[in-house]
Amino acid sequence: METITSPKNDHIKLAKKLTVKKYQKDYDRYLLEGPHQVHDALAAGAQPDRLYVTSKYAQDREFKEYYNRMTEITADVEQHLSSTQSPQGVFGVFPLPHNQLPKQLHGSFLLLDGIQDPGNVGTMVRTADAAGVQNVVLGKQTADAFSPKVLRAMQGSQFHVNIVSADLTKLVPQLQRSGVPVYGTELNDQAKPYASIAKTDNFALIMGNEGNGMRPELLARTDVNIYIPMRGNAESLNVGVAAGVVLFHLLS
Amino acid sequence: METITSPKNDHIKLAKKLTVKKYQKDYDRYLLEGPHQVHDALAAGAQPDRLYVTSKYAQDREFKEYYNRMTEITADVEQHLSSTQSPQGVFGVFPLPHNQLPKQLHGSFLLLDGIQDPGNVGTMVRTADAAGVQNVVLGKQTADAFSPKVLRAMQGSQFHVNIVSADLTKLVPQLQRSGVPVYGTELNDQAKPYASIAKTDNFALIMGNEGNGMRPELLARTDVNIYIPMRGNAESLNVGVAAGVVLFHLLS
Repeated sequence: METITSPKNDHIKLAKKLTVKKYQKDYDRYLLEGPHQVHDALAAGAQPDRLYVTSKYAQDREFKEYYNRMTEITADVEQHLSSTQSPQGVFGVFPLPHNQLPKQLHGSFLLLDGIQDPGNVGTMVRTADAAGVQNVVLGKQTADAFSPKVLRAMQGSQFHVNIVSADLTKLVPQLQRSGVPVYGTELNDQAKPYASIAKTDNFALIMGNEGNGMRPELLARTDVNIYIPMRGNAESLNVGVAAGVVLFHLLS
Repeated sequence: METITSPKNDHIKLAKKLTVKKYQKDYDRYLLEGPHQVHDALAAGAQPDRLYVTSKYAQDREFKEYYNRMTEITADVEQHLSSTQSPQGVFGVFPLPHNQLPKQLHGSFLLLDGIQDPGNVGTMVRTADAAGVQNVVLGKQTADAFSPKVLRAMQGSQFHVNIVSADLTKLVPQLQRSGVPVYGTELNDQAKPYASIAKTDNFALIMGNEGNGMRPELLARTDVNIYIPMRGNAESLNVGVAAGVVLFHLLS
């Protein structure tokens, strides 16, 4: 097996670029990091262009099927490729999924309107996956789904949930015309407590920006606004926790 | 008003130390960062030893009452004191709260058993506050509650919730003897779906380590183990999201 010893190797330079949205688009590829994430990708049937592994993993039986696409890397190269202080020895270059919204708009949708923190985006995709949401739609100003921080927080849920990008101001009326009720999350006079909303498999829930909430133009289009009554004194919930509370209510 | 222009000033060196647990204990003080956090502290009646502010805030009417405890700092000093890339011009040195468990063990308790990520600890305190939990107990190996990252995620909830540290292996039997049922969160054969647990104001909920869950010695002592049924394919939920789903069920 070939071994790459320099972070300046062209393949490594390219792999590193595949952590950045611009290059991910140009090359239609992204970099996954860590044995767990790469394992999830392979388990989901994703086909790596190449796996970069340290000597510890070069003989790993789990990756046996992919030995012919494996390149060994040194600790220097491992550290260079990694987005964390403690890299875990395995990287994979995978094709970007080409997801699309279902032609028949029906089912469960989580719409992220300007969620800026990558950890929040990843946690919400993971939560949507756990709750059984089918589609997560990233609106404008929402963090890119394939950045290292989002991937780490998603924990492989990108293989279970249909993640797409779309203009939410266009999508919301399309959903409504297709009979999917759109729930906003903003505490206003008309907002209803989440527990009063009937459990359903057919809905779109919009979660808004961490600081500013949903954009007014989206808020104006929602069918119902829901809120989480708080007995305590916190001003608000973390957006990922709020999404979890509402989604597990709706889909339970 | 005095202005400090050097990060090497003794007061600034001390203030910076007050972001670290050891020094926080030695001096019985901690450093709060940002106008929002400092505002929450003052609103809760906490008395700062000193506020360090940039010129932008030196005339801020909100801090009028504390002008005599204010020191102006330059941008250099601001950046030195800050734990973020974009500091926000206000810092306060506050006394550490001396919280204790209630003498009569009754009410709601969130027990954190080895939660390592500061963001998770902070988010869970904030969530507990929102849900109306009265006490959050930090067990061993749980991240320190007054580190900058935890404080940022708590968003002032340390002023609304009774945060204490304790040996959970001792506390759990004490709670049980006092009639407080202790719920574990581990998916095992005996575990019950959270929605089947009756809503209550009198309980202790244990959340375990992000990777390894609860310690076995605690698990063995719980009255009931509860889990969150997942319709989707995620292996697990983020620990903060899981705490939110369970707490908002129990206390709603």
